[in-house]
Amino acid sequence: MRELPLPKVFQFLEPGPVVLLTTARKGRANVMAMSWHTLVDFEPPLVACVVSSADYSFDALRATKECVIAVPAVELAEKVVQVGNSSGRDIDKFEAFNLTPLPAERVKPPLIAECFANFECVVVDTRLVHKYCLFVLEVLKAWTDPKQKNPKTIHHRGYGTFAVDGEIMRLKSKMR
Amino acid sequence: MRELPLPKVFQFLEPGPVVLLTTARKGRANVMAMSWHTLVDFEPPLVACVVSSADYSFDALRATKECVIAVPAVELAEKVVQVGNSSGRDIDKFEAFNLTPLPAERVKPPLIAECFANFECVVVDTRLVHKYCLFVLEVLKAWTDPKQKNPKTIHHRGYGTFAVDGEIMRLKSKMR
Repeated sequence: MRELPLPKVFQFLEPGPVVLLTTARKGRANVMAMSWHTLVDFEPPLVACVVSSADYSFDALRATKECVIAVPAVELAEKVVQVGNSSGRDIDKFEAFNLTPLPAERVKPPLIAECFANFECVVVDTRLVHKYCLFVLEVLKAWTDPKQKNPKTIHHRGYGTFAVDGEIMRLKSKMR
Repeated sequence: MRELPLPKVFQFLEPGPVVLLTTARKGRANVMAMSWHTLVDFEPPLVACVVSSADYSFDALRATKECVIAVPAVELAEKVVQVGNSSGRDIDKFEAFNLTPLPAERVKPPLIAECFANFECVVVDTRLVHKYCLFVLEVLKAWTDPKQKNPKTIHHRGYGTFAVDGEIMRLKSKMR
């Protein structure tokens, strides 16, 4: 994994891909699939995400205030759905789905070796957790896998239907 | 425009498309491009979105607490970038970019006739507006254009680069 400058993080999340979210509690790591997230600021990169209180990850995230957001390419789509269809209450998902946890630098939850980008995060605002399960995260450290070239991401339309990235368009933007 | 049942709204926003956001203040409508949004709940559909205080739309949204989220297909990409590169401070964007405002039913900001989905929204939570410019919206009424079949959306990767929807994958999900 190669370190990614923090101001570039938004480019990976703004398109709205399905991501994996890892947590760790009492020495045990878990992972869930997540589609409900948005950028909140560029630098430091802030992200808002919704983790349902029905998800096993909710308690770990609320208690430890740490997570990793990992971005899978389309080749991992089957595993992403398996992760989404199971609970860390019942199984060790890393083992069950053959995902490789790697130690992170700033947080306890692991990176995922198979994902092309990994973002180490801490929870910085919990005001909307009680009512909406919405956490505001700050990305402390970011990594990409230089071996995965031009990865295509998947975008969830509900009920297991995903749009895969297709054509890339470049238009004249004033964005610096 | 045909009415869309509210429980179906998430399917249009969860994939993370670039959307247009309309506001209206003192009898004048405006529109901006927006990529920073996420679902927060299914029903009633709640959406969190970030509208920068530097955007002309910010004051209108904060003051009126109403907006419309309109989803453009890829054929509108050039106009979306033009909308994003200009400000309602300087021009009437509907006129300048030949977008057609249609009256909404529950809110004052207009629907956009050229977009394949339009969601009438009110602001329901402003606790994170001061610190993050993050608004929580509730969708009161939703519309789709039955004439636009299988629209492809665009996903912003920054600096005017967009991934267009490609292949559609269907995997076995437990989601009901």
